[in-house]
Amino acid sequence: MSVFKISAVFAGVVPALFSASVFAQQNVAKMTPVSFSNVEINDKFWSPRISTVTNVTIPVCIEQTEVKTPRIRNFEKVARAKGEKHEGIYYDDSDVYKALEAIAYSLKNHPDPKLEAKADEWIDKIAAAQQPDGYLNTYYTLSGLDKRWTDMEKHEDYNAGHLIEAAVAYYNTTHKRKLLEVAMRVADNIDNTFRQKGLHWVSGHEEIELALVKLYKVTGKEKYLDLADWYLQQRGHGYGKGAIWNNRDMGAKYCQDDVPVADQKQIEGHAVRAMYLYTGAADVGAAKNDPSYFKAMNNVWEDVVYRNMYITGGIGSSGSNEGFSVDYDLPNKNAYCETCASVGMVLWNERMNLLTGNAKFVDVLERSLYNGALDGLSLSGDRFFYGNPLASEPNYQRSEWFGTACCPSNIARLVESLGNYIYASNNDAVWVNLFVGSKTSIPLKKGTVQLQQESNYPWDGNIKLTVNPAAKQSFPLHVRIPGWANNQPVPGETYRFADKEENPISISLNGKPVKYEMQNGYAVISREWKKGDVIALNLPMPVRQVLATDSVKADRNKVAIQRGPLMYCVEQLANADPKQNFIIPDNATFKTEFEPNLLNGVTVIKADVSVIKPTANGKSLETQNGSITAIPYYSWANRGRSQMEVWLPTKVSSVNIKANSDDN
Amino acid sequence: MSVFKISAVFAGVVPALFSASVFAQQNVAKMTPVSFSNVEINDKFWSPRISTVTNVTIPVCIEQTEVKTPRIRNFEKVARAKGEKHEGIYYDDSDVYKALEAIAYSLKNHPDPKLEAKADEWIDKIAAAQQPDGYLNTYYTLSGLDKRWTDMEKHEDYNAGHLIEAAVAYYNTTHKRKLLEVAMRVADNIDNTFRQKGLHWVSGHEEIELALVKLYKVTGKEKYLDLADWYLQQRGHGYGKGAIWNNRDMGAKYCQDDVPVADQKQIEGHAVRAMYLYTGAADVGAAKNDPSYFKAMNNVWEDVVYRNMYITGGIGSSGSNEGFSVDYDLPNKNAYCETCASVGMVLWNERMNLLTGNAKFVDVLERSLYNGALDGLSLSGDRFFYGNPLASEPNYQRSEWFGTACCPSNIARLVESLGNYIYASNNDAVWVNLFVGSKTSIPLKKGTVQLQQESNYPWDGNIKLTVNPAAKQSFPLHVRIPGWANNQPVPGETYRFADKEENPISISLNGKPVKYEMQNGYAVISREWKKGDVIALNLPMPVRQVLATDSVKADRNKVAIQRGPLMYCVEQLANADPKQNFIIPDNATFKTEFEPNLLNGVTVIKADVSVIKPTANGKSLETQNGSITAIPYYSWANRGRSQMEVWLPTKVSSVNIKANSDDN
Repeated sequence: MSVFKISAVFAGVVPALFSASVFAQQNVAKMTPVSFSNVEINDKFWSPRISTVTNVTIPVCIEQTEVKTPRIRNFEKVARAKGEKHEGIYYDDSDVYKALEAIAYSLKNHPDPKLEAKADEWIDKIAAAQQPDGYLNTYYTLSGLDKRWTDMEKHEDYNAGHLIEAAVAYYNTTHKRKLLEVAMRVADNIDNTFRQKGLHWVSGHEEIELALVKLYKVTGKEKYLDLADWYLQQRGHGYGKGAIWNNRDMGAKYCQDDVPVADQKQIEGHAVRAMYLYTGAADVGAAKNDPSYFKAMNNVWEDVVYRNMYITGGIGSSGSNEGFSVDYDLPNKNAYCETCASVGMVLWNERMNLLTGNAKFVDVLERSLYNGALDGLSLSGDRFFYGNPLASEPNYQRSEWFGTACCPSNIARLVESLGNYIYASNNDAVWVNLFVGSKTSIPLKKGTVQLQQESNYPWDGNIKLTVNPAAKQSFPLHVRIPGWANNQPVPGETYRFADKEENPISISLNGKPVKYEMQNGYAVISREWKKGDVIALNLPMPVRQVLATDSVKADRNKVAIQRGPLMYCVEQLANADPKQNFIIPDNATFKTEFEPNLLNGVTVIKADVSVIKPTANGKSLETQNGSITAIPYYSWANRGRSQMEVWLPTKVSSVNIKANSDDN
Repeated sequence: MSVFKISAVFAGVVPALFSASVFAQQNVAKMTPVSFSNVEINDKFWSPRISTVTNVTIPVCIEQTEVKTPRIRNFEKVARAKGEKHEGIYYDDSDVYKALEAIAYSLKNHPDPKLEAKADEWIDKIAAAQQPDGYLNTYYTLSGLDKRWTDMEKHEDYNAGHLIEAAVAYYNTTHKRKLLEVAMRVADNIDNTFRQKGLHWVSGHEEIELALVKLYKVTGKEKYLDLADWYLQQRGHGYGKGAIWNNRDMGAKYCQDDVPVADQKQIEGHAVRAMYLYTGAADVGAAKNDPSYFKAMNNVWEDVVYRNMYITGGIGSSGSNEGFSVDYDLPNKNAYCETCASVGMVLWNERMNLLTGNAKFVDVLERSLYNGALDGLSLSGDRFFYGNPLASEPNYQRSEWFGTACCPSNIARLVESLGNYIYASNNDAVWVNLFVGSKTSIPLKKGTVQLQQESNYPWDGNIKLTVNPAAKQSFPLHVRIPGWANNQPVPGETYRFADKEENPISISLNGKPVKYEMQNGYAVISREWKKGDVIALNLPMPVRQVLATDSVKADRNKVAIQRGPLMYCVEQLANADPKQNFIIPDNATFKTEFEPNLLNGVTVIKADVSVIKPTANGKSLETQNGSITAIPYYSWANRGRSQMEVWLPTKVSSVNIKANSDDN
């Protein structure tokens, strides 16, 4: 066992990648993703999760949207035109669209005529609610069309964006055009209302930007790309008007409207809005081959990842603005860490990876995916977290639904479209980003290459990758070597006691060591590939104890436990003994064990610790030997009400005794 | 040292006192109070407090009322009649009246022409705001007289009640009639609007009932007494209408309007409203010589004192309704215990004592006065508590003022009128209820008796009482022997380790033991008194450890420290070391010491305790010998932000360690 102290590995390296001069001379994007529709997932970890989303989560979303809440009924009311009132909140339409998007992905993964019929029924209702001029928003249509486009906070373009995303997804799966045409008319209506007239409008909750790029890609109509860029350009010039801007505590900063996008340097405001904004900016930049947003995005990314991201990949520590506060303000119990913000981190980091070819973005994507985002969905598929704290008081539990219900359908659509994030390519090369059992076919200039991955990831790091080119061909295969596998945490974190396992990272080809070069976090194997070539990758998975930078006050005297891509936590179920107080000793040793019957099968981590508890007579405290069992963070709160902590104490700085259980 | 376990001392005794048959045959009230205006206080403990209220608190109330808030300006706006808007809350008028009442008492104690001129100026403004029909309420007059008397919650009669109280007090001090006549017209207007027309109206916030009895007493007009009784009779018949009654969580119960007053059995709802109601009911019953409310009041009193009162005499544990929840629900940190509710306890228990001649009510009065109520006022006189919790998180502190500012003027008027609560009499006998250095003259049938008290109370229990009858005369002198002095806590409390001091309760006359009889909690000395007779009373003041009944979950494994009438607390100032965790050992011994320079002079209580703290390396905890210094509860939060607890742990049932100071 030896101690690794790793300093900031990215500092100084990244900015050069984004310098305008570099981008000006070449295509902005390094590669394009392989669509999930070309990826067949067959993975011990993910396949059951995807099935649960298909069989449980999507039906829950449908029931909530259609029966238990008035979301679909608002569309019906518009069509009836009998003066009925809107029910719910002005952004509720978006939940219908996001559920529809998840259904579209699900239908691609698992065709289901009944489900498709339900989607068509919804699409008919949506189409019937569209106004003759193309405007489509049940809130304003039912409460007064004269008031539309008066308050930029009212999510009119956010709703439109999610409609567009659903339409593109549904078209891609079914090739039915009805919803796509509705979406195009919606986009046209916005374009005619503002851009074509030279008027200004700021999207209070960004989202439409990335959606319009999707609409552009599926329709080929450049005006949608231009409209997306126009939306980006509107920000930061004082055009914003409405409830947010009038709110002294929020203001333009809350929705990233205080500084033009290209000039932004720091992360600020509402976390989900920020993620969608930067995803949209990356998409516009890539599609327009325009590097002007990238310097800003890189600065903001470093600000997020180095100073404002939780170790779970969650972001937005503050509940009051659902977003960012000041650097290193990362409280654990009070962490907001909205599920949607982690979904947004997956989206944005995917784009950053595609733009740069740098694996560090996938490191963050993987962190947010397996921890911050996945935590939002119960193992059963029908319970959710809106916020994902890193510690909880006793009796914390998941909810069936939320008044503001953005998160359930967001995690559903993410899981159903997981295939998007595994592989990428350009004409000449292939990238393997995530380790998920799957098959895909990737067309390269010299012919199609089939890839097959098999593994037991994230429980161990042995990955078998079979390369099957249609015919022999030479190309570089980039296999991501995660930062954690190289003992390279992000700046602001340090590993202590990183057990160097007997087998270090190894890559073999057909059973023999293979030469590879490390480039941007990828092991690049360049050779002539032939059918049946097998790459065996081994990523050692010792238990890593992570220390936070001292700037994060909440994590001082604490350690977090990581194994592979997973963060661990210690959970104590409610109604067990009073909270167990323990200290991780400096020389703690960790044992791992796969428990197939626990939490759908998890590798647990056990450690001997010092346990502090009252003596039998209650007259003093004693320190005893004891042990803890840590479970993956994503799997907590699946056994009933519980108390939980990710950051585990290594030292006691103060103590609070209680004389009784009602000590309040 | 010996252990006393005292069972419920009052159970079974009291109800008989209140049986209608007893009352039907005699005057309802046993005695009448000696007015504060006939009592000259010269007391080491109270005289400085009264001076502070005169010199600091009343000027603060005036400045807040006149300059810093729009309370007086609302009256000016009414007089100007220029359509200006009401500012503040609909009950803000009452703060003007309560400040005026405090001023009236202050002028009696310390005549001050400038202050009297200020009062006259306010009275002119108040009078100028009265409508031609007698109605007087700035909120409705400025926001629409058509809406008056439509919502019984809007405190119209509460405001009127405080106006009447102020008018009576100011008339009693100055014999100026202007405000009294305003008040009479206000009462006449209410009487004409409802009672004379046979209409129904419920006072949402009781207060006017007791005020009308005062108005009846000063004017001799029976219609005011009848109106007071009418107000009581209105309750509990479903007449209540308005915001409270429509509020599902509050309802009629919130203002004691669900059951007719005479049928009430349990305390419920808003604590201050309840106290004012029962005070008013006692006043009406005494004035009408009508015992019909007394059985109810006795039942409710037992419900308050035996099951719903804090050891500080504070009541109303729940902040959500500013009142009562369920029996024995007495959380310490979350205790609401509004200052005004403790003032109300003083008022109600005075009336109960006058009605019954039983000292147990003065025991409760004294407890609320010296602890729950006095805690509401800082030693400096210019900081206040609205709620008076029995434990606090670090950084708790007093406020300069409140949006709802009932408490500051309420504690001011209570302190200025303290003289009311010391002595009582009937034609034939004298009662000494409180131990406050003072002089008074009491007219008895056979001639006036002058009494003089000297003591160092509450710091010791040696009281010297000089009896100076104008001429020799025989009468029984009742001297209250506090329950605590007899080791008789209220039911629900037990003393443990009550140190029997070497000198037990003793009473001597002119230096020699004197024969006395115990009656209703009083030592009754019946003899022929002559000038210069000196009674020396000694009430032993060992430190009493009080245990709560096991039904109070929050106090399990805890002990409270009492000495004489004072409850003690342990306070730790902010910015000191982290919270000190200590356990009071079973065999704890307590030392007392008077510290003249601490908190204006207090007797502190010191004890050796077990202190629990982290070891130097932070790897475990250790229990060390240490000590605590307890201060009187009323004196906490006078040295800056602090943490405090009244109930001190005797046992650890659970522990929470913190790794750092930002552990959240």
